[in-house]
Amino acid sequence: MNAPLPHEIVRNLRPVPAQMLDALRQRFGERCSTAQAVREQHGRDESPYPVTPPEVVVFCESTEDVADVVRLADRHEVPVIPFGVGSSLEGHLLAVQGGVSLDLNRMNRVVRVHPEDLTATVQAGVTREQLNREIRDSGLFFPIDPGANATIGGMAATRASGTNAVRYGTMRENVLALTVVTASGEIIRTGTRARKSSAGYDLTRLFVGSEGTLGVMTEITVKLYPQPEAVSAAICQFPSIDAAVRTTIQVIQMGVPIARCELLDTNAVRAVNQHSRLGLQETPMLLMEFHGSSSSVQEQAATVQDIAREFGGTDFEWATTPEDRSRLWAARHKAYFAALQTRPGCRCQAGDACVPISRLAECINESVADCEAAGIPYWVVGHVGDGNFHLSYLLDPADPREATLVEELNVRMVRRAQRLEGTCTGEHGIGLHKMGYLVEETGEGAVALMKTIKRALDPRNIMNPGKVLVI
Amino acid sequence: MNAPLPHEIVRNLRPVPAQMLDALRQRFGERCSTAQAVREQHGRDESPYPVTPPEVVVFCESTEDVADVVRLADRHEVPVIPFGVGSSLEGHLLAVQGGVSLDLNRMNRVVRVHPEDLTATVQAGVTREQLNREIRDSGLFFPIDPGANATIGGMAATRASGTNAVRYGTMRENVLALTVVTASGEIIRTGTRARKSSAGYDLTRLFVGSEGTLGVMTEITVKLYPQPEAVSAAICQFPSIDAAVRTTIQVIQMGVPIARCELLDTNAVRAVNQHSRLGLQETPMLLMEFHGSSSSVQEQAATVQDIAREFGGTDFEWATTPEDRSRLWAARHKAYFAALQTRPGCRCQAGDACVPISRLAECINESVADCEAAGIPYWVVGHVGDGNFHLSYLLDPADPREATLVEELNVRMVRRAQRLEGTCTGEHGIGLHKMGYLVEETGEGAVALMKTIKRALDPRNIMNPGKVLVI
Repeated sequence: MNAPLPHEIVRNLRPVPAQMLDALRQRFGERCSTAQAVREQHGRDESPYPVTPPEVVVFCESTEDVADVVRLADRHEVPVIPFGVGSSLEGHLLAVQGGVSLDLNRMNRVVRVHPEDLTATVQAGVTREQLNREIRDSGLFFPIDPGANATIGGMAATRASGTNAVRYGTMRENVLALTVVTASGEIIRTGTRARKSSAGYDLTRLFVGSEGTLGVMTEITVKLYPQPEAVSAAICQFPSIDAAVRTTIQVIQMGVPIARCELLDTNAVRAVNQHSRLGLQETPMLLMEFHGSSSSVQEQAATVQDIAREFGGTDFEWATTPEDRSRLWAARHKAYFAALQTRPGCRCQAGDACVPISRLAECINESVADCEAAGIPYWVVGHVGDGNFHLSYLLDPADPREATLVEELNVRMVRRAQRLEGTCTGEHGIGLHKMGYLVEETGEGAVALMKTIKRALDPRNIMNPGKVLVI
Repeated sequence: MNAPLPHEIVRNLRPVPAQMLDALRQRFGERCSTAQAVREQHGRDESPYPVTPPEVVVFCESTEDVADVVRLADRHEVPVIPFGVGSSLEGHLLAVQGGVSLDLNRMNRVVRVHPEDLTATVQAGVTREQLNREIRDSGLFFPIDPGANATIGGMAATRASGTNAVRYGTMRENVLALTVVTASGEIIRTGTRARKSSAGYDLTRLFVGSEGTLGVMTEITVKLYPQPEAVSAAICQFPSIDAAVRTTIQVIQMGVPIARCELLDTNAVRAVNQHSRLGLQETPMLLMEFHGSSSSVQEQAATVQDIAREFGGTDFEWATTPEDRSRLWAARHKAYFAALQTRPGCRCQAGDACVPISRLAECINESVADCEAAGIPYWVVGHVGDGNFHLSYLLDPADPREATLVEELNVRMVRRAQRLEGTCTGEHGIGLHKMGYLVEETGEGAVALMKTIKRALDPRNIMNPGKVLVI
């Protein structure tokens, strides 16, 4: 099975019966909308796929709201698609079988913070920036940072990670407990606030990363971390991607507890320069951050600087004040939009491969060479401490030939990563796009087992159908 | 449903037909045994439950061996119980429905080590000490340390953790990929060697902690860590358990990256003194270890010492040489056997609760007071940095009244932990013993969902039946 191209998306509507629509209107009043603008807003994400709207949008304010919608959907065999801020990249939110979009943005309450236990429980629509604002005075922070100001629910659904994962882990490691509405509309709890447990099957981690296809996560309990006593950020320029990656490998192998280690290739640096007027030297670059006590941060930085010099890295340029650091990270986070602006009218297809770190340079270099040969504009950023990188293509959405060419490049990158014992997605998820790659990666046996789970937990195939697995 | 007492174990044999026994003998020859001594050796663990032998033991040497046994068992609806070193504590290995014990000890090969990627793939029967011996020269180590020299397969099956988890996580965080024989005898792979992935359902973590009830893990790929540049261990004595726990809480809240933080109560210190002639002062004690660069280790220790002093802790007593450190940790690991010797002829029922760290002192203190009032000999050790502790009871196995009394104490401790938002098992698992507690903890809804998964993946209920869930 090939990855569907943007113009190949097939809609296979399972209509919402009038009886169900009436029931939704009666129950939710103005919080139930069939207005075209609202539906279109809920039928898209940041992927190059065309808008594919649901039939109706319900703005939920509580777990009970979600359960009520799901019970109706179950009865009428209508698809249900949870919706956060729409920042997903693989077509997760497209209503390819129609149905109801569950907008969870009004579920934006930080329910409980237990600073003494380093835990917080939030509703699914709370964004990571909101959570960090609300807990700032506690001296704690929530580290997972995928770039976009995504909702915690959306981040849990795609098993997101991002720049801090090399030190703090991904959503897989940082979700302790969940409230979930199952496919039959039942409300269940998984996990507790204890930091570890051997009590039965790990339902928490089954739902984390399931992309809305097994149930709707409505409340999420996450781990928090003490704000480090000292933070420093540094930039280091390198003669080649290879030199930057080899530096990273050695940093990880030496056990330096680096908090962030981001690669930007020359194209990404150029875009960021144009967009944020940073005046960076346009070469491959590592953008790093160190967390710890003052002396530990100094020691980490000195060790990394020694390693970088061995590989031809320039001396560090420091961002010591919080303002300088914010400016640097803001620029990094804007790289996506900055790159989009280098080709007016284009859309971005973000690649997302992750390999064992020793194979990272090989995987990036071959993929970049492939892109250069094809003449498609691209840029690379990477959470390289984890072996994860994004080679992203800028394509003309009006030109199906470009979409085809980009997918050819992408499939070669995915297969390269898989051949190097890596994965087709480090953090963006399978969505609509990578269902075929999942089978190639994990084999028919494991995918058959996933399908068995999906059929058992969602027998009517109403939970975000048409994503992750072909049922 | 109450926890079954040792004398209440009900056997419900599902006989191994002669035809299957013949097929096993033909396929495995001398590696298939029905000798009583061998069967009895495979029908027990470290719990107080009586020996409950399987009908036949097969010594497997490969994944294909396991798959062949499981296919036969599937055809004849016969139970299959994977067996490692028999160190489990909750009755996981008892053949309550008879069947085949799959002895995996001959699957003891470290299949591949990738030092540059910090990963190793091992067969399920490799023990943690063996793995660490074989990788020592690589400069890496595998941190998970539940005390017993368990197999990596057994540790994955119970989602084990132990003394290092506060810094390095549990088996949940440290297993990257698996080879699994499913209930139909199919061999599947989950995960890759990439450190993170968003590719589909997290089958790896569904099998980790499933206690042999969903499939047999035959190969496990784990994360390794660089051996720290410096390691130091210290003992600190406290006037009360409370003072030791409050010290721990503050250490965690300040983000000190402590590698081990073990509580021993006065009873445990006394037992260890008698057994290992350590000459420790007999008060509650924290046994700590710090990993990092030389200066970071010094800084961590100084911070912790300052905190301990605030709570009336004495100055640290250091174990600076590797020999001194080994002697201390060996004594800690022998606490279990040391405690057993304080009451000749007794067996130990190891409690295992885990709570949010702010509730830890309350949970331990009330549980200890309960024990004191009942007059049952007990001792406490705890991986207190995670909020996990073991209040263990020493009971006369010949006296059903003691078993009843101990279970009453235990159920009150479990419910106390659950009331404090914790779990009935931090690391030992559910096994035979805690199936009722699992329902109380997570609710009927979540347990029903676990049962749905169990029935879907193991429709004939042959994988370690009668454990975790009542099917």
